[in-house]
Amino acid sequence: MVHKKDKEAKGSWVTYRPEIKLLDCTIRDGGLMNEHQFEDGFVKAVYETCIAAGIDYVELGYKASKKIFAPDKFGDWKYCDEDCIRRIVGDNSAPIKLSAMADAEKTDYHEDILPKEQSVFDVIRVATYIHQIPTAIDMIKDAHDKGYETTLNLMAISVVHDSDLAEALEVLVKTPVGTIYLVDSFGSLYSEQIRDLTLTYLDAVKGTGKEVGIHAHNNQQLAYANTIEALILGANRIDATINGMGRGAGNCSLELLLAFLKNPKFKLRPVLECIQKHFLPLRDKMEWGYRVPYMLTGMLNQHPRAAMTLRASKNPDDYVGFYDQLTEKE
Amino acid sequence: MVHKKDKEAKGSWVTYRPEIKLLDCTIRDGGLMNEHQFEDGFVKAVYETCIAAGIDYVELGYKASKKIFAPDKFGDWKYCDEDCIRRIVGDNSAPIKLSAMADAEKTDYHEDILPKEQSVFDVIRVATYIHQIPTAIDMIKDAHDKGYETTLNLMAISVVHDSDLAEALEVLVKTPVGTIYLVDSFGSLYSEQIRDLTLTYLDAVKGTGKEVGIHAHNNQQLAYANTIEALILGANRIDATINGMGRGAGNCSLELLLAFLKNPKFKLRPVLECIQKHFLPLRDKMEWGYRVPYMLTGMLNQHPRAAMTLRASKNPDDYVGFYDQLTEKE
Repeated sequence: MVHKKDKEAKGSWVTYRPEIKLLDCTIRDGGLMNEHQFEDGFVKAVYETCIAAGIDYVELGYKASKKIFAPDKFGDWKYCDEDCIRRIVGDNSAPIKLSAMADAEKTDYHEDILPKEQSVFDVIRVATYIHQIPTAIDMIKDAHDKGYETTLNLMAISVVHDSDLAEALEVLVKTPVGTIYLVDSFGSLYSEQIRDLTLTYLDAVKGTGKEVGIHAHNNQQLAYANTIEALILGANRIDATINGMGRGAGNCSLELLLAFLKNPKFKLRPVLECIQKHFLPLRDKMEWGYRVPYMLTGMLNQHPRAAMTLRASKNPDDYVGFYDQLTEKE
Repeated sequence: MVHKKDKEAKGSWVTYRPEIKLLDCTIRDGGLMNEHQFEDGFVKAVYETCIAAGIDYVELGYKASKKIFAPDKFGDWKYCDEDCIRRIVGDNSAPIKLSAMADAEKTDYHEDILPKEQSVFDVIRVATYIHQIPTAIDMIKDAHDKGYETTLNLMAISVVHDSDLAEALEVLVKTPVGTIYLVDSFGSLYSEQIRDLTLTYLDAVKGTGKEVGIHAHNNQQLAYANTIEALILGANRIDATINGMGRGAGNCSLELLLAFLKNPKFKLRPVLECIQKHFLPLRDKMEWGYRVPYMLTGMLNQHPRAAMTLRASKNPDDYVGFYDQLTEKE
């Protein structure tokens, strides 16, 4: 009676693959909403929740250049200096791994990323736009040589041409990078597109031992749906954030993902506790999550920047005016 | 480079099928949150928005039995008497069709549903649980004989056994019903399951001229994703609500669906206008949309009743207590 899901699926909703590893980037992606000004208590709560929930990786921020981003304008989590991180995690004796994101062209990686043995970090995640790939590859090499696990997060994939992606993947699989991430920065991809892209990435890494990751945004209420689509097809590195906190419409909610995965190493209850105690009170001070203006930039395959500007303006709910502005003939 | 979506897809994200028809059930499903006490101005705004947006059907409420549901406890949209509906739509000279929902065992259908020629309604949608199917079939026959287009909305499909569904579909396709709806009342189905069920329904109606419909709930942030999954596979009757308004976590948002469909007969702007003018002010008075307690009932494949009770209690944000209560060993 019931049809079988297509052959490409690497599992079904009742199963889990032990290879699946979750990365919580609540503080890192959430920091894009408040210039990374989180209080230590909140950062610590997220870190400890991730440990209690059995999450594999936690990312607290960026390794941003202090020459480009003046330290008086941003919180500590923009730079993730070793001493700041150690205020929260000590020497990180827990099994969870720590990652930092390094943006191509916005990181003084030669100086600011220490050799692994001097650092509490385990992973460097290099975020890059397609045109920055040569820089990103140098950053991957640098981090790898210093002893880190690495990932390459190719952002804004919804505006990358197929032929450019093919070329990029061909080059990237020859680098020492451990994981290549499919990143829907604009939250504009439908599940069908995520499906096609995931299969493309999986094809590219086949036989290399590299993994494919997924990082989705919720502009069109598809972050979670797209994440499980990629996961089912074989993406093993999954980004999520507690309560979906993240820039604009936010990310795939960690609690939804834990409810989906049946792997007994993950625990949902600590995440619910953290939301109730630390995230709900924050809702009055910070805004994140699906709203119509983010849907509009998502559907038009645009950066959510304009929607964020609207939400911070005096007329945050002028949906019609915003729509007219976005769709104005030039 | 890019993989083709599987063979079963009846289109891709850039296409639309003219056969797709949208039904707005904002007032009907939203009424489950406020005992159907909407003011005429609001109901009229929704009706007029649907016309302006090119929606095919609009549903304002139920044909509930006044013997079972005392009229002093509910608003007019619980009963949808002809004179009440005509306050809003007159003789409905617009191209939009009007539907009313009739619950099996809760409708005095022989008396309360008039012959079509005396009624402003075009469609009777019979909502039924699996064990009420014999009653539902009698209601379908009654409505069909009176001259209405009919649909059968088989609720809570996530708790129906495959073998029972097979038997139900076999019987239903022999009735005069026009559309059979897949209804995820608990918002608990993943896209994979929606996919399998949609294909099962499509198989069942093959060659009969009947259509398959989809009605999804947003408990796990999957209402829209699941709706487009079913739509892509061939479901042609699609339920949605403005701003996702509906019981508990709400429904598939009409604005998301219009952004997805490229059919030029549908217009997004009137819906944005309606949200801005009529729905945002209502957010202070009525609650709907995704929240963690609805995720918890969804993931456990339960009716959202307990989550609605929590949200109406003195401790609406006690997520952990609610989780413990739901998962308590018996």
